[in-house]
Amino acid sequence: MARIDVVVDDVSLDAPTLVEGLPGVGLVGKIVADHLVSTFEMDYYAGVHCEGVPQAAVYRGERSSLRPPVRLHADEERDLLVLQSDVPVSPAEATEFAACITGWLDANDVTPLYLSGLPDQSEKVPEVYGVSTGGGERLLDDAGIVPPAEGGLVSGPTGALLYHAGRNDLDSVGLIAETNPQFPDPEAARAVIDGGVEPIVGIEVDTDALVDQAEEIQDARERLAKQMQQADDESSQAEPLRMFQ
Amino acid sequence: MARIDVVVDDVSLDAPTLVEGLPGVGLVGKIVADHLVSTFEMDYYAGVHCEGVPQAAVYRGERSSLRPPVRLHADEERDLLVLQSDVPVSPAEATEFAACITGWLDANDVTPLYLSGLPDQSEKVPEVYGVSTGGGERLLDDAGIVPPAEGGLVSGPTGALLYHAGRNDLDSVGLIAETNPQFPDPEAARAVIDGGVEPIVGIEVDTDALVDQAEEIQDARERLAKQMQQADDESSQAEPLRMFQ
Amino acid sequence: MARIDVVVDDVSLDAPTLVEGLPGVGLVGKIVADHLVSTFEMDYYAGVHCEGVPQAAVYRGERSSLRPPVRLHADEERDLLVLQSDVPVSPAEATEFAACITGWLDANDVTPLYLSGLPDQSEKVPEVYGVSTGGGERLLDDAGIVPPAEGGLVSGPTGALLYHAGRNDLDSVGLIAETNPQFPDPEAARAVIDGGVEPIVGIEVDTDALVDQAEEIQDARERLAKQMQQADDESSQAEPLRMFQ
Amino acid sequence: MARIDVVVDDVSLDAPTLVEGLPGVGLVGKIVADHLVSTFEMDYYAGVHCEGVPQAAVYRGERSSLRPPVRLHADEERDLLVLQSDVPVSPAEATEFAACITGWLDANDVTPLYLSGLPDQSEKVPEVYGVSTGGGERLLDDAGIVPPAEGGLVSGPTGALLYHAGRNDLDSVGLIAETNPQFPDPEAARAVIDGGVEPIVGIEVDTDALVDQAEEIQDARERLAKQMQQADDESSQAEPLRMFQ
Amino acid sequence: MARIDVVVDDVSLDAPTLVEGLPGVGLVGKIVADHLVSTFEMDYYAGVHCEGVPQAAVYRGERSSLRPPVRLHADEERDLLVLQSDVPVSPAEATEFAACITGWLDANDVTPLYLSGLPDQSEKVPEVYGVSTGGGERLLDDAGIVPPAEGGLVSGPTGALLYHAGRNDLDSVGLIAETNPQFPDPEAARAVIDGGVEPIVGIEVDTDALVDQAEEIQDARERLAKQMQQADDESSQAEPLRMFQ
Repeated sequence: MARIDVVVDDVSLDAPTLVEGLPGVGLVGKIVADHLVSTFEMDYYAGVHCEGVPQAAVYRGERSSLRPPVRLHADEERDLLVLQSDVPVSPAEATEFAACITGWLDANDVTPLYLSGLPDQSEKVPEVYGVSTGGGERLLDDAGIVPPAEGGLVSGPTGALLYHAGRNDLDSVGLIAETNPQFPDPEAARAVIDGGVEPIVGIEVDTDALVDQAEEIQDARERLAKQMQQADDESSQAEPLRMFQ
Repeated sequence: MARIDVVVDDVSLDAPTLVEGLPGVGLVGKIVADHLVSTFEMDYYAGVHCEGVPQAAVYRGERSSLRPPVRLHADEERDLLVLQSDVPVSPAEATEFAACITGWLDANDVTPLYLSGLPDQSEKVPEVYGVSTGGGERLLDDAGIVPPAEGGLVSGPTGALLYHAGRNDLDSVGLIAETNPQFPDPEAARAVIDGGVEPIVGIEVDTDALVDQAEEIQDARERLAKQMQQADDESSQAEPLRMFQ
Repeated sequence: MARIDVVVDDVSLDAPTLVEGLPGVGLVGKIVADHLVSTFEMDYYAGVHCEGVPQAAVYRGERSSLRPPVRLHADEERDLLVLQSDVPVSPAEATEFAACITGWLDANDVTPLYLSGLPDQSEKVPEVYGVSTGGGERLLDDAGIVPPAEGGLVSGPTGALLYHAGRNDLDSVGLIAETNPQFPDPEAARAVIDGGVEPIVGIEVDTDALVDQAEEIQDARERLAKQMQQADDESSQAEPLRMFQ
Repeated sequence: MARIDVVVDDVSLDAPTLVEGLPGVGLVGKIVADHLVSTFEMDYYAGVHCEGVPQAAVYRGERSSLRPPVRLHADEERDLLVLQSDVPVSPAEATEFAACITGWLDANDVTPLYLSGLPDQSEKVPEVYGVSTGGGERLLDDAGIVPPAEGGLVSGPTGALLYHAGRNDLDSVGLIAETNPQFPDPEAARAVIDGGVEPIVGIEVDTDALVDQAEEIQDARERLAKQMQQADDESSQAEPLRMFQ
Repeated sequence: MARIDVVVDDVSLDAPTLVEGLPGVGLVGKIVADHLVSTFEMDYYAGVHCEGVPQAAVYRGERSSLRPPVRLHADEERDLLVLQSDVPVSPAEATEFAACITGWLDANDVTPLYLSGLPDQSEKVPEVYGVSTGGGERLLDDAGIVPPAEGGLVSGPTGALLYHAGRNDLDSVGLIAETNPQFPDPEAARAVIDGGVEPIVGIEVDTDALVDQAEEIQDARERLAKQMQQADDESSQAEPLRMFQ
């Protein structure tokens, strides 16, 4: 019964791009996804009922209608899908979750952009790097996104999504942004949008709000960190694999 | 073999409303359910033998006949069902439990009112908000119940019930009451009955007893908290999802 | 392969009564079962090979022949069966254990008397109460055994047995005796025999030995408590459900 | 795929006796098995690939050829098999392990001697007692081995083997030797060989080496205890069941 | 779906030798495998999608294309395969992993060299010993590699691979090198290459770089130890089985 249920029938997409926004290190993907859904006022498009999604009900302020905690939102004009999640996916079921998502993407001709933070303690402007499966490398080249200088490993649910994309030879891109390792990092999210999502998808996104809210977010960070990153050690992240040769 | 076994054949219901009373934060649902069953002297109607229900036997004072720990009670005159539970449902089996309950409700044309506490430390009179799935919004509008001002998440077995109602497009209502986060809260239960159950079901319920017993309950709260909320962190509750946009 | 294997073919029973003696709080059931088997020199009748029974081998003093750790003993003259256990049943498998036992009882027209302790710290003579499923209430009435004054819950393997009896509408009786919550309680066992087993089964049992051995048992109680009640928190017991209405 | 693979085809046995040597309390069985294999220079006869056997590879000094960690060794002349194990069997899989072994013994007309230690703190010469299933009692009588004076329970993998032998009505013998509860006990192993294995199998075994090595073993005991008895609490042992009647 | 997916079609191998490089004690196998892949610039040949392999995505510096974390690399000229792993294999799934690998090796006529460290605290030059299954002993003899002086046990995923090779009567060799028990040990890796891989495979490997990097590795050892050996107690290693006869 695990599957993705499209809940609208008046949205037509043509080989869309999907931006994945699962909560991982720095909440980079989640902040990006929430910002895109909000800024473009994207339509609620599908419920994601895959294994690993906690069965809970989400309500929004001022509206009574409930939604599932992991959803797809669509923007027909921009041929864009966003995977939005209000809960962490169970790391123990990441394999089944990734197989469920990957099968749907493949069947619906969707090109995914997976987002992962790369813990970095420096104060400099976060860099964004690109990795890829299938023919995704061409998308990175066209957008002028370079690979990481140093090798590494993407783990967690996002790592499983990239693993399945690779095994299925699905065209996909992974955007890896340097991020604060402990707290939500809107600067990293802005870098992903400006340096990755915009050039690949060919859209413009106003990210000023992200920066304006930085201070507010700073205040909220302890609460958020506790709320969203309980599965911290197993959450999605990239990490360097510095071997000696 | 998991299913709901109706144990009487002389009670006839016509598209009844069900009030769910699983033990969750503040024991709000359980206090409401126990009060309705007691006040209306509702009939024992069905045993709930779904996955996640601990296999134990319940006895009542002065009567030898045993009952299962999770049951439905019925009031034919008011077309009302109450889901009464003397044990917490296993959070690890909430999915199977919710599927079992939801299938039965759907097959029997029952409209559920799910009850959840929203932890709140203030001393003010508890507010009651409404959320919904399917056509449940109309019930809230007719009863004048507003949605929460701020978005949030209902988790635990009650969250799973709402998730399944949503996925099955079942008409359902969730009543979310501000509650003491640590102890049984009869004030919250009274607010749910007065502000939610009465207007939606169209019945009158004497809740004076709940208030009179408040002091007595206060004395019993440590014992009860220990007895009923051992699965505390995973018990049903609503919680705000204060995101930054 | 889980089932009850009758090991004799020369014992003929006619709708017998079974006294259950699983180790639970106060070891009430176990002391009763051991005393009946010993006093009546009951025959080893069947091995209980249900799920949840630890696979171990039991030897008796001065005899080399091994027996399974959970067994039925029979007394043809008194039409009596006793479920004797030298090990605790796994609480995690109580469901399968109870289904296995209940199916056999049902198929063989056996009426079970389930035994449970009700923790009580007072020094008074222990009370024995009766609960029932199916037509068991009549047996209690005929024997003059009253229900508990206050409602409660029987949990653990004995609770699962009563739950299954109820769900299968099997005639059964539960005898609930006040017991020392921490140590083996031969006084409670004597009360169960005198006030419950004797009048229901219609037999006489000499229980003087139980009292004479009380002092000896007192000495052994720490060792026994450790040996038999490791699964303490999950062992069978009745507990009050003092709700506020 | 779990089974016992015979690896030689030039050894012919006729209703042999098997001496079981799983590591248990006091390492009694293991010391006996190792001593028999070494003294009689027994042939490697079969790999034991049953559930519960850790998948590891064993090498012997000065020889490169690997062997499985649980094996049968054979002595054609003496019609003897020894079950030798260099690893503890997983207690969680003792049921499947015992079923696998018991089926093979039954199919190949093998009479097993199971060995278990009975923890004893005294300094006296260890006693050896006999228990039995099926027609094993006759073997004990012929050898003049008496049952324990006091009843008890054999648990762990050896207990499961005796349980399965009993359930399958297989002729088997259990030899229970008093042993040091914490350290390897070559004196107990010698007592088992002298007082149990020799008279039942009808062979002579030089056990002087066991005693000579006692001092050396004493030195090695801490290392060995750590290495072999990590699953200590669940390892095979006999324990008294001192009940009060 | 678990299997080994060959990703190239222009590499032709004829009964190749495989060098296994799973991370185990001293990281001996991993250092050897990484060094061979790097020195010979071996081709990425196949993704290893067996059970027990964490689903993660590996990127290399300066290249965007992702690879699975466990892979085979090939050198057509030397008829050589290397099993390279950037993650520990789950010890709980070592059985399924080993069955998956062994089946593929058997079907493709590959002779494996399995590598294991033998913890050793001395400062002397590490010794390399050989063990074998099937006809592997001949390879050791031809290369002049002697067995360990003392018996022992190879556990962990590499132990499971040797166990399965033995059970399938596959020709295989295990090279056991004395190694630092706590930190990556490039000296042990060099000893394995010089004393084991070179003579068996009949190739020459420049190992100077390994020694030159020793100091650098020393600096990195704490980080690496944490990164790679989290499953430390269950990682592959050989250990002596000093029994008393």
